[in-house]
Amino acid sequence: MSTITVPAEVPPVSDDVEQLRKAFEGWGTNEGLIIEILSHRNAEQRKLIRQTYAQTYNEDLLKALNKELTRDFERIVLLWTYDPAERDAFLANEIVKKGAKSNQVIVEIACTRSSHELLLVRKEYHARYQKSLEEDVAYYTTDEVRKLLWPLVTSYRYEGEEVNMTLAKSEAKLLHDKIAENCYDYDDFIRILTTRSKAQINATLNQYKNDFGQEINKNLKADPNDEFLKILRATIKSLTNPAKYFEKVLRLAINKQGTDEDALTRVVTTRSEFDMKLIKEEYKKRNSVSLNEAIAKDTRGDYEDMLLALAGSDDA
Amino acid sequence: MSTITVPAEVPPVSDDVEQLRKAFEGWGTNEGLIIEILSHRNAEQRKLIRQTYAQTYNEDLLKALNKELTRDFERIVLLWTYDPAERDAFLANEIVKKGAKSNQVIVEIACTRSSHELLLVRKEYHARYQKSLEEDVAYYTTDEVRKLLWPLVTSYRYEGEEVNMTLAKSEAKLLHDKIAENCYDYDDFIRILTTRSKAQINATLNQYKNDFGQEINKNLKADPNDEFLKILRATIKSLTNPAKYFEKVLRLAINKQGTDEDALTRVVTTRSEFDMKLIKEEYKKRNSVSLNEAIAKDTRGDYEDMLLALAGSDDA
Repeated sequence: MSTITVPAEVPPVSDDVEQLRKAFEGWGTNEGLIIEILSHRNAEQRKLIRQTYAQTYNEDLLKALNKELTRDFERIVLLWTYDPAERDAFLANEIVKKGAKSNQVIVEIACTRSSHELLLVRKEYHARYQKSLEEDVAYYTTDEVRKLLWPLVTSYRYEGEEVNMTLAKSEAKLLHDKIAENCYDYDDFIRILTTRSKAQINATLNQYKNDFGQEINKNLKADPNDEFLKILRATIKSLTNPAKYFEKVLRLAINKQGTDEDALTRVVTTRSEFDMKLIKEEYKKRNSVSLNEAIAKDTRGDYEDMLLALAGSDDA
Repeated sequence: MSTITVPAEVPPVSDDVEQLRKAFEGWGTNEGLIIEILSHRNAEQRKLIRQTYAQTYNEDLLKALNKELTRDFERIVLLWTYDPAERDAFLANEIVKKGAKSNQVIVEIACTRSSHELLLVRKEYHARYQKSLEEDVAYYTTDEVRKLLWPLVTSYRYEGEEVNMTLAKSEAKLLHDKIAENCYDYDDFIRILTTRSKAQINATLNQYKNDFGQEINKNLKADPNDEFLKILRATIKSLTNPAKYFEKVLRLAINKQGTDEDALTRVVTTRSEFDMKLIKEEYKKRNSVSLNEAIAKDTRGDYEDMLLALAGSDDA
């Protein structure tokens, strides 16, 4: 379900590396060439390009890109060039360093990656920052935000499809009782969302809807400015319907006065090789224009070109 | 630092498998032969024996052992035959099924294994029980016991030796303040013990001793029957000095009226290929007799023979 296109005949990696080097040389940088190469190589191929570039020129490709590029275009090319786990570790660390504003990014990484992918992120976090991800998340957060984010980033959920319907029924009731008592930060509420398998959570929340007549997220809207409720809703949505979750992130980013380039870049770089096709379908359904049309309208230059190359064509 | 001895010339695995099969055949079981083979093969060799046994006789070696053996000898041979991660998953699940008595076993697995080993345990838990370890631990525990055990089993600690002394100083003070306030189950208390690297925790607790004149565990003895304080002390001891921690488990198991065979078997099977030599040194220092002498005095028959084979000779 990747939206990027890789040429049928990929040039030898030594050619890619040489072309990239050429794009950096001289006075002007050849951004078009950078896009042409990097946006049409998959994660494995980009990894090989980085390794070969480092061997050939004794310089990290990311450092070279960092010297040559600026602003939103720089950020999207750098994020794209990272390996997925490295990219997530970098994004999570950025949030932690900011003192954990936009905790939603942490939720997103913890809930929409597979259990194995999340482990790889934690491994990369050790290697890059000489600390553990949970160490930083638990240290920089407080109160109920910590109570939710900490177990989320340490989760290693079972990924089988088996569902225990008796448990789904009893835990749906438990969730409902806690909402009725205004106890969202109650241990069991968080326990269910952070430890149960995604299949089990889906079953529990469907049961909730059947038994109590409304989606649980509709019952979690007490205060729109409440940071905890906000990330609690993001947790539920990203666990149960990641495509709809990401559609909403893109919609808010694009509709925002001035565009939220960081969110746009993050979703496009992290999802293009995973579920971007589904996200684009959701986007078209919800917004009457395609994501590509919205991007073309809202962004420009090399940044726009890179976004569109990663998001793929509308008919793909 | 393994205490088992593997022969210089290990027979071909097909011979081991054939010999084991012979040991099961006829009216009596040849326990001596089982001990002779299995106790002198390392984890990798035992794994190969299991695989080859299954291929040759279309039966799981563990099932065959289970049919042939009984009581303490059965348990030690079965636990020993497991792969280390599988064994830990099995032990943790046993605790969870008992409704989480002897939570100390969970602490032990979470704190004395490496970060990578603990991940492998969690992976095995998925495979064996179609659930996650943290899902069960969080479900079956309550209150402050849950608050400690849950993050412990999900931890993936950084394993570098770097230490931040400023942090060690401030967190030593934080721990001391919380103890003074009787707030051991306070979030930050548990956060430090469950997320910091072992090197960092050691530095913090040394700082604690320097600044406040006493080991932290001495300050955590308010009530000897308090289950939470008990596992909190086990957490600290097993994180900072696993050999001393295991020495104490063995000492209590052996000195107990009637011997605690489960604890004895657990420590011997889980540590023989890791730090058993250190544990034996600690034991000798503390108890004036060697562990082997204590085992010989307290146990008998095939069970004794197996324990002694795994614990290795006293001069090794």
